Amino acid sequence: MKIGMLTSGGDCQGLNAALRGVAKTLYNEMGKGVTLYGIRDGYRGLIEGDYHEMKPDDFSDILTLGGTILGTSRQPFKQMQRPEEDSEQTKLDKMLKTVKKAGFDCLVILGGNGTHKTANLLRENGVNVVTLPKTIDNDLWGTELTFGFQSAVNIASEVIDSIHSTAFSHSRVFIVEIMGHKAGWLTLHAGIASGADVIVIPEIPYSAKKIAQAIEKRAKDGKRFSIIAVAEGAVSREEAAMSKKEFKAAREAMPYPSVSYRLAAELKELTGQEIRVTIPGHFQRGGAPCAADRVLSSRFGAAAAELIREGKFGNMVALRDDKIVAVPLSEVAGKLKTVPPDCEIVAQARALGLSMGD
Amino acid sequence: MKIGMLTSGGDCQGLNAALRGVAKTLYNEMGKGVTLYGIRDGYRGLIEGDYHEMKPDDFSDILTLGGTILGTSRQPFKQMQRPEEDSEQTKLDKMLKTVKKAGFDCLVILGGNGTHKTANLLRENGVNVVTLPKTIDNDLWGTELTFGFQSAVNIASEVIDSIHSTAFSHSRVFIVEIMGHKAGWLTLHAGIASGADVIVIPEIPYSAKKIAQAIEKRAKDGKRFSIIAVAEGAVSREEAAMSKKEFKAAREAMPYPSVSYRLAAELKELTGQEIRVTIPGHFQRGGAPCAADRVLSSRFGAAAAELIREGKFGNMVALRDDKIVAVPLSEVAGKLKTVPPDCEIVAQARALGLSMGD
Amino acid sequence: MKIGMLTSGGDCQGLNAALRGVAKTLYNEMGKGVTLYGIRDGYRGLIEGDYHEMKPDDFSDILTLGGTILGTSRQPFKQMQRPEEDSEQTKLDKMLKTVKKAGFDCLVILGGNGTHKTANLLRENGVNVVTLPKTIDNDLWGTELTFGFQSAVNIASEVIDSIHSTAFSHSRVFIVEIMGHKAGWLTLHAGIASGADVIVIPEIPYSAKKIAQAIEKRAKDGKRFSIIAVAEGAVSREEAAMSKKEFKAAREAMPYPSVSYRLAAELKELTGQEIRVTIPGHFQRGGAPCAADRVLSSRFGAAAAELIREGKFGNMVALRDDKIVAVPLSEVAGKLKTVPPDCEIVAQARALGLSMGD
Amino acid sequence: MKIGMLTSGGDCQGLNAALRGVAKTLYNEMGKGVTLYGIRDGYRGLIEGDYHEMKPDDFSDILTLGGTILGTSRQPFKQMQRPEEDSEQTKLDKMLKTVKKAGFDCLVILGGNGTHKTANLLRENGVNVVTLPKTIDNDLWGTELTFGFQSAVNIASEVIDSIHSTAFSHSRVFIVEIMGHKAGWLTLHAGIASGADVIVIPEIPYSAKKIAQAIEKRAKDGKRFSIIAVAEGAVSREEAAMSKKEFKAAREAMPYPSVSYRLAAELKELTGQEIRVTIPGHFQRGGAPCAADRVLSSRFGAAAAELIREGKFGNMVALRDDKIVAVPLSEVAGKLKTVPPDCEIVAQARALGLSMGD
Repeated sequence: MKIGMLTSGGDCQGLNAALRGVAKTLYNEMGKGVTLYGIRDGYRGLIEGDYHEMKPDDFSDILTLGGTILGTSRQPFKQMQRPEEDSEQTKLDKMLKTVKKAGFDCLVILGGNGTHKTANLLRENGVNVVTLPKTIDNDLWGTELTFGFQSAVNIASEVIDSIHSTAFSHSRVFIVEIMGHKAGWLTLHAGIASGADVIVIPEIPYSAKKIAQAIEKRAKDGKRFSIIAVAEGAVSREEAAMSKKEFKAAREAMPYPSVSYRLAAELKELTGQEIRVTIPGHFQRGGAPCAADRVLSSRFGAAAAELIREGKFGNMVALRDDKIVAVPLSEVAGKLKTVPPDCEIVAQARALGLSMGD
Repeated sequence: MKIGMLTSGGDCQGLNAALRGVAKTLYNEMGKGVTLYGIRDGYRGLIEGDYHEMKPDDFSDILTLGGTILGTSRQPFKQMQRPEEDSEQTKLDKMLKTVKKAGFDCLVILGGNGTHKTANLLRENGVNVVTLPKTIDNDLWGTELTFGFQSAVNIASEVIDSIHSTAFSHSRVFIVEIMGHKAGWLTLHAGIASGADVIVIPEIPYSAKKIAQAIEKRAKDGKRFSIIAVAEGAVSREEAAMSKKEFKAAREAMPYPSVSYRLAAELKELTGQEIRVTIPGHFQRGGAPCAADRVLSSRFGAAAAELIREGKFGNMVALRDDKIVAVPLSEVAGKLKTVPPDCEIVAQARALGLSMGD
Repeated sequence: MKIGMLTSGGDCQGLNAALRGVAKTLYNEMGKGVTLYGIRDGYRGLIEGDYHEMKPDDFSDILTLGGTILGTSRQPFKQMQRPEEDSEQTKLDKMLKTVKKAGFDCLVILGGNGTHKTANLLRENGVNVVTLPKTIDNDLWGTELTFGFQSAVNIASEVIDSIHSTAFSHSRVFIVEIMGHKAGWLTLHAGIASGADVIVIPEIPYSAKKIAQAIEKRAKDGKRFSIIAVAEGAVSREEAAMSKKEFKAAREAMPYPSVSYRLAAELKELTGQEIRVTIPGHFQRGGAPCAADRVLSSRFGAAAAELIREGKFGNMVALRDDKIVAVPLSEVAGKLKTVPPDCEIVAQARALGLSMGD
Repeated sequence: MKIGMLTSGGDCQGLNAALRGVAKTLYNEMGKGVTLYGIRDGYRGLIEGDYHEMKPDDFSDILTLGGTILGTSRQPFKQMQRPEEDSEQTKLDKMLKTVKKAGFDCLVILGGNGTHKTANLLRENGVNVVTLPKTIDNDLWGTELTFGFQSAVNIASEVIDSIHSTAFSHSRVFIVEIMGHKAGWLTLHAGIASGADVIVIPEIPYSAKKIAQAIEKRAKDGKRFSIIAVAEGAVSREEAAMSKKEFKAAREAMPYPSVSYRLAAELKELTGQEIRVTIPGHFQRGGAPCAADRVLSSRFGAAAAELIREGKFGNMVALRDDKIVAVPLSEVAGKLKTVPPDCEIVAQARALGLSMGD
């Protein structure tokens, strides 16, 4: 049995731990019927036939290693530059050709939402696939947790913690922009974990006025500083009321590098105070996975290997109720898990005195 | 409404975050009908009437603070030294007297298994109690997670990670003794997270011979070092077959400071190699809670305050399916949640090539 | 003896540890002739007479606390907004008035370059001052180390480490913008510590072309990614040749939020690759001081208290040869310690194969 | 030119960074006249002729890696087990034979005190050696800093910080045993950095009575807990007065696993309180080097390569005044740098209110 493995989309913590989990579970069979192949740079390598055999030693000492030893690339069908002339169909054909030529009996695919759509396409075209849910955004449908999320929460919380002392010392309002274009899980958890005063997520359109009021209420209570955790995908109430087209136009005309800077300008206008913006950026996605992500990735890897052994293809491994289950790709591909605005944890954040900016 | 709060048993990460969660949820009512009291040093303060009113400011800047601002004491009915002359009944009477005298309408009690037994006793004697599940051991029945656990997993994993480089460099076998007298959750998770080679937990009696074989198998595969994560409550197969009385006698006669040292001696005998023992000890329980524990503690605190508001006493807050629920104290008090030897995560650890020492 | 203490300029790690060092050294005298006063928000509090007596308890548990419990403000004579109408002379007069009115026998002043200029002005006007050198930039003349620097090196290195895994996984070039407007010490140390490939500091004007060559040389050697550590005060060779006025105009016309973005655009033009920019920002200055900074701050604090006892005013405490010495303020005020382009550590960075971008 | 490299003695942080520093500085010459060899497990590999050629790729990604990729072994002339039958002279002869047979033009030796004695012996027998000072104890004569020290200070401080919250919460006295058999630098720095109340180092014999008084003074001041940082090589006043022979006998008869446990028993006797002991052990030596150690190791490595290029053999690289200098091995071999009991930093610790236990 020939197994090809690839990691696709933005890198995150735990990719190597998950690859190792798959491989270690198959160690005893490697060389005795099972051969593992690493496909380079995600779907790019599958399209171009760039892969190589991997041995047990290749998976040594990678449990705590950030990034992915296989390399990755983003959005194969949208922005992939090589080979840029290809149509989507051509790319798919090339992938199928590589699978056939290499004789891959199945593919192990690690990725987020975009990756899962393509994985499902491969499945519909007859390829045996097993997928693992990776993303710091935790926005994949069908699993309680994706790996990467808990590590990113740690980092984002650490950044906000650190900003806390400066905000206090300088009696200032700080905005910390947290990753998350469509889902606010990361901002929500990091904001609660680090005692942010306001949390702004894409799912709950914000009102600059309400945020200004929250800041001013704190000032009245003698708190001379405030910290606002803003997801990069935050939208204002006005924007939420726009059509998709209007929104796109509005954003293109927006004279700020990101929504955080716009909010800073709005709040300066409303409160008369300077507002500082800090953007930890890619820092949130890199480095060693936290312990919880290493456990989760290892378990996902072991479960994926088990699915392959049993021939249960077309599934994503997922966490439910502290158990690893198999969820049909057809059910999860293309579905986003966003924060329900009235969910329990949001209600608890409000109960704790946090403003959700609305 | 007068609310008395106490933290009891060994301290752990997240106690202050949980106290803050309760208080912040009640901020708007404080001074308007709700008064919070801090009872010092757990049940000791309740017995001796040692408590004081607390204001919102007392809960500022404690989200990330390790330990407990209220102080704690261990095992009120067993080893409490002051007042040592008292019988259990006398102590209970004194607690009830304090509750009455102080006019506490309810008690918020944060603790582990021992604490919950006493909390239930108070409940049976007519005291309104709401409890929060705290312990790095994660061995409280009725909740998927206790706070403290995830922080301790991080620290224990960090220690094993660090030992890894020395074990490799010196081609040595290391035993790292992890906290957990009755339950192996912490050792199991930290062991998987840090790539330990052998994991020994109380629930799965170990065979020194099997562990020696695991070490020797690794040596045969060219791995010149091994790391064994051992829960402090580990027992050998021989001990597991003993009566409680025999076991106690055997342990009293054991010429080693802990079971890890005994295992080290056994393995030296069997393999001819020096085995090093490292015991991080209390380091696992102290310091700032990790982000996940801060979120969990805050949510538990908010939920506990909500239960008080609704008059739903006699409950422990618990995590189930990522929701905070109320579990009757009568159902959980005195019940331990240990690792089922055949549970999924143990099976996955074995699949990943780890030895469980059996 | 009445001692007023203030912290001024941007906050950094170790301010509280240093304040504690002063106070702990004087504990036995407090209440017996020595009284400590905290002046709020740096020189702002001195101008406005905003100060309060401090007791030993105020210094408990602040050794590891980030920021400053006294608050701080920036640049009293340039941008201080309150009272904005005042001239520099008026501000100075107000400060002197506060010193007199409060009866301060001496001031302990913690700050960086700007702060030291004002401290020296106070000295010249008859105020007894002792200063402590604080800044993450390590650019104060007269001391080998300032506190804050070593903590910031740790954080900046951690960020670059983390970016490393993403840069590798995506085969990308990353620019990490490190704090430091005039001096490159932080970028230089963090860059070496984290294995950056190119280090760009204000003292060594950069050539985008040379940096592009360094990237391409790495690509030729099979390294598909590169990391460039850029100090925020970096200047190009062209800019270095400009007059101060030309430079200012050029920068005002620069269509990028910072020099890092400009360099990214230049490198994209030269190499054809997308270049990512990450800016950890204030994250570098906040949070707990590292162990070395806590030792240094404590020692500086103890030494400052000793100078006060001995009546040796008009000095800055400084580290030389692992000893704390007193350096006359008149010698250090207004002098910057920048990286000599031909100094040993730069030569060693080059020897290690790093490009300095020139 | 053939260069053999070895790491000897207990591992510590920064060994790999230093090896990388040597190699990266010689990259351009590798394959063009310069060949690097890695000798396995320290002097063991030199005795047995166990070495292999190394290429630039072998030094990739090891800057932050703990331990040593070459492996190490302890005390070649005392406890080395293989080949145990050999006399010291035989071992030396075998080493010289390997050097000759392999054609090593010089050896790069990384190690601590024991290692340097042997290195000097090799030098005296005509071998070209350059050494790098490694040890978490910072007790090598001739250099202000050894690599490993600053990382170990960070870890030991982190452990004491963490114990702090438990000591406070339980109103307990804790002893934390820090590494350091002969020199107290690590305990001294970590103790100051983490706000320990008592610091006990080998250079200043302790009086249990004085320590008990320090604890009781704190109790009188309302501090219900104390933390005592004890170097593993601590000696009591009584022991300090003994002859070497008496001391050895006394220690062999000591019914405690380490001096910390004895001190705990003494303090329990004197104060009536339970005293807890925590021993972080090897945890202090493992894991990634801190940023400062990575810079120092890299600089040492670059300087060592430079010495080789210039043919300046028989030297140890050393840090003095923030410069890397060459110190003749003959001057440093066998010389220990301990803490002068009356040095400045000890005086400052006392000024800060810390007890040195004497």
